[in-house]
Amino acid sequence: MDKNKIKVAIVGYGNIGKFSLEAAQAADDFEVVGVVRRNPADREGIPADIPVAASVADLVAGGHRPDVAILATPTRSVEKYAKEILAMGINTVDSFDIHGQIPALRKSLDAAAKAGNSVSVTAAGWDPGSDSVVRTLLEALAPKGITYTNFGPGMSMGHTVAVKAIEGVKAALSMTIPLGTGIHRRMVYVELEPGNTLEDVAARIKADPYFASDETHVFEVESVDAVKDMGHGVHMTRKGVSGATQNQRFEFSMSINNPALTAQVLVACARAAERLIPGCYTMIEIPVIDLLPGDRYSWIGKLV
Amino acid sequence: MDKNKIKVAIVGYGNIGKFSLEAAQAADDFEVVGVVRRNPADREGIPADIPVAASVADLVAGGHRPDVAILATPTRSVEKYAKEILAMGINTVDSFDIHGQIPALRKSLDAAAKAGNSVSVTAAGWDPGSDSVVRTLLEALAPKGITYTNFGPGMSMGHTVAVKAIEGVKAALSMTIPLGTGIHRRMVYVELEPGNTLEDVAARIKADPYFASDETHVFEVESVDAVKDMGHGVHMTRKGVSGATQNQRFEFSMSINNPALTAQVLVACARAAERLIPGCYTMIEIPVIDLLPGDRYSWIGKLV
Repeated sequence: MDKNKIKVAIVGYGNIGKFSLEAAQAADDFEVVGVVRRNPADREGIPADIPVAASVADLVAGGHRPDVAILATPTRSVEKYAKEILAMGINTVDSFDIHGQIPALRKSLDAAAKAGNSVSVTAAGWDPGSDSVVRTLLEALAPKGITYTNFGPGMSMGHTVAVKAIEGVKAALSMTIPLGTGIHRRMVYVELEPGNTLEDVAARIKADPYFASDETHVFEVESVDAVKDMGHGVHMTRKGVSGATQNQRFEFSMSINNPALTAQVLVACARAAERLIPGCYTMIEIPVIDLLPGDRYSWIGKLV
Repeated sequence: MDKNKIKVAIVGYGNIGKFSLEAAQAADDFEVVGVVRRNPADREGIPADIPVAASVADLVAGGHRPDVAILATPTRSVEKYAKEILAMGINTVDSFDIHGQIPALRKSLDAAAKAGNSVSVTAAGWDPGSDSVVRTLLEALAPKGITYTNFGPGMSMGHTVAVKAIEGVKAALSMTIPLGTGIHRRMVYVELEPGNTLEDVAARIKADPYFASDETHVFEVESVDAVKDMGHGVHMTRKGVSGATQNQRFEFSMSINNPALTAQVLVACARAAERLIPGCYTMIEIPVIDLLPGDRYSWIGKLV
């Protein structure tokens, strides 16, 4: 064990967990001390030298105490896991992504972190997350004006889950297509259960609250898996006023592998957590320099 | 005087000073307590209710002590002014823009600020400044890769000053044109002193170290003033690796009024200075939320 490295555990081993393991292994200042998953006997894809356990407590009991746990769990389980781990004095990082619930979660985790003398970084993915940092910066650069965040083209997890729950749908994929000014088209690809027509299923999807207010197109495909990719994108724009000067224009865009970027943000925020005083933080509350490894002074020379 | 407002003085009343006054007046949480300029009898363009003095010490003596001074002075005078003002326990913000000298200036102002129990925010314009925040964020999102910062189209102050110093030049404007991957073309517009040919002057300009390594075109114009505008732009790109995933692509661009954006950044950083512990900071060391007025908790709900 290298005493100078940040010891990290990956909690959850779905898509985000797998990419988080890759990102932590790619970072020289991290050492992965364990993966936590429901069935620790399943070591599929996990390097032989990395312990696998059913809980962070089991990792600690086995002598593999992490400094920080990356919560690659479903978003609705984040609060429960975070509170358990923060209480053990171990930092947590999560990519909780239900925008409207972030202030309340932050408040709740702030109390838990302070009680546990630990640090939580919450909502740390790309949106919420790194996009939030850009949105905040643009608000400061042009205090009057409108920011539009356009998503895609890319798969929407929330909309895909909503389609899967609709009667007659065997498998589904909902793609988000940006039309500008924050307006999106939904392109939905479905495999049908036997005995259902595309017309009926499409009508049910378009009536769902997730889709009712957006332009939605539904297509039947032989294999949803064959049309799935993990690429995603963002195009954010702000036009506004700096001081008394109108028409200042800003754009931020990216074209990225979705879970890979989420995982990279989680690792960067796990690093930042080591440098913060106990409490819970969103990314807009953390100096961006704290996301980077190594000597601050040399980054100032390179990046400022 | 409103006790809840941040009392700010504008030091220097050139372009940046004028726009800083506008930006501070547009911000509800600021009160301008004075303008400092060489000749305080010259009140041209300054509202009648704003005191004008020859120094911050004079403003203080007159009962108009600021919490923070925006240094809208030439970049080479920043250190001298900042040290005097920081020693009085008054925060300073500057847009010092000589990239290679920023780490040393930060170190020097850090000592001065700590001694004065005050805060300095340095290199706080748009580049260095807000662009630095984006560059740092992109470095965290894709730790391996290359960032290119492309400037323009817009006037380069440094190159314009260099042309003006060349023999045979009466007036000059050097425009920076972005060619991508950080390569720039220089478009130089000159009025000639009598007895000089465009050919000779162009040869001298192209031999100057400021221009020798860039594609440079020189044109004679009747009036430099007639072709001058204060618009500028940036197009920053990064292609890199998140974890083990290649080809992550990011872009940031803006099209802006140059002094208006610089002034807006100075005002936002003057606000942040109120929230920092004594010392000197570059923008990458400040949480972006501190650039915004009012209640943090409500910004988290709106922007994260």
